[in-house]
Amino acid sequence: MKYLIVYAHPNPNSFNSAELQTLGSALKQGGHDVRVRDLYAEKFNPVLGPSDFQALASGSFPADIAAEQSHIRWADVLVFLYPVWWAGMPAMMKGYVDRVFLKGFAYDYGRDGSIVPLLSGKKAAVFSTTGTPSEFYEKSGMHKSMRQTADEGIFAFCGVEVLRHDFFGGIPSSTAEQRAAMLKRLASGLA
Amino acid sequence: MKYLIVYAHPNPNSFNSAELQTLGSALKQGGHDVRVRDLYAEKFNPVLGPSDFQALASGSFPADIAAEQSHIRWADVLVFLYPVWWAGMPAMMKGYVDRVFLKGFAYDYGRDGSIVPLLSGKKAAVFSTTGTPSEFYEKSGMHKSMRQTADEGIFAFCGVEVLRHDFFGGIPSSTAEQRAAMLKRLASGLA
Repeated sequence: MKYLIVYAHPNPNSFNSAELQTLGSALKQGGHDVRVRDLYAEKFNPVLGPSDFQALASGSFPADIAAEQSHIRWADVLVFLYPVWWAGMPAMMKGYVDRVFLKGFAYDYGRDGSIVPLLSGKKAAVFSTTGTPSEFYEKSGMHKSMRQTADEGIFAFCGVEVLRHDFFGGIPSSTAEQRAAMLKRLASGLA
Repeated sequence: MKYLIVYAHPNPNSFNSAELQTLGSALKQGGHDVRVRDLYAEKFNPVLGPSDFQALASGSFPADIAAEQSHIRWADVLVFLYPVWWAGMPAMMKGYVDRVFLKGFAYDYGRDGSIVPLLSGKKAAVFSTTGTPSEFYEKSGMHKSMRQTADEGIFAFCGVEVLRHDFFGGIPSSTAEQRAAMLKRLASGLA
């Protein structure tokens, strides 16, 4: 299978970075093709803005967006890897969705105005860290809300089936053993 | 009262822009003080990145962040005005939260590791447009999920009481009359 890992974390020494390494290695060992889009390293521009709308109005996607779309087109499985900041994606990750998942690529409108998903057949997995312990967010419904906004609000809208949406909680206060167990859980199931 | 309107939309001809004008005028006519942060116009940098962490590590907030924090400190009520994109804030708006609502300004940790909110006493109102009709999002629970991620995940975390979190749905297919009614609803209740 072809896996596209879209990764957004500013710190190469973070647990998210360890997740990226672990998951990439596990997938490759499993015989899969892996591409990584490291949005911070690539200095991806996450702001959907006037120049984008100008390009779209003239019938083309901006070059940097078209490049990201080609990676998505290539992939069987999209893996989103990011830390939860303020109960959502970092702006860098959110802006990747804002700018890349455009009408005419990720979805379109039918003659009757209904949504036509354009990424059907692809699958997705979302792995997120939180500072807050998972028990708290599970109980408060925050996990559910975060899953709905991403799984329904983004992926299902485009016809993408979400295989997994896992949270790794309480990272700042976690022990080395707990982190190792989380990395093991991350790699199992996908690879 | 002192109102800080934080606004994120790339198009000055949008319904969001009309909301900004309507709300600003209504508040001023109500005798309130109003400040507007137009994040697109100001070319706000929404990417919390390595240079921010370097500044924080040396004990100071980056200059552009400190300027935004001073506006928040001034305000009694924070008004967030943005279009819902992909069941969440545009990256520009999300990155304003990521970069400005920092530890030591918006919240801190107590000795026992518990959260200490630092913006207690302030209030907030959130007004968002959606392309999808409101009935659909109300039924699917998406409104609830979007409210929880913002109202609990951001504002309550910092001690800010959310007065209103209203959605204006089906904007692309709305009539002039419907839009006028929405603008009237927007201005009532706050001003």
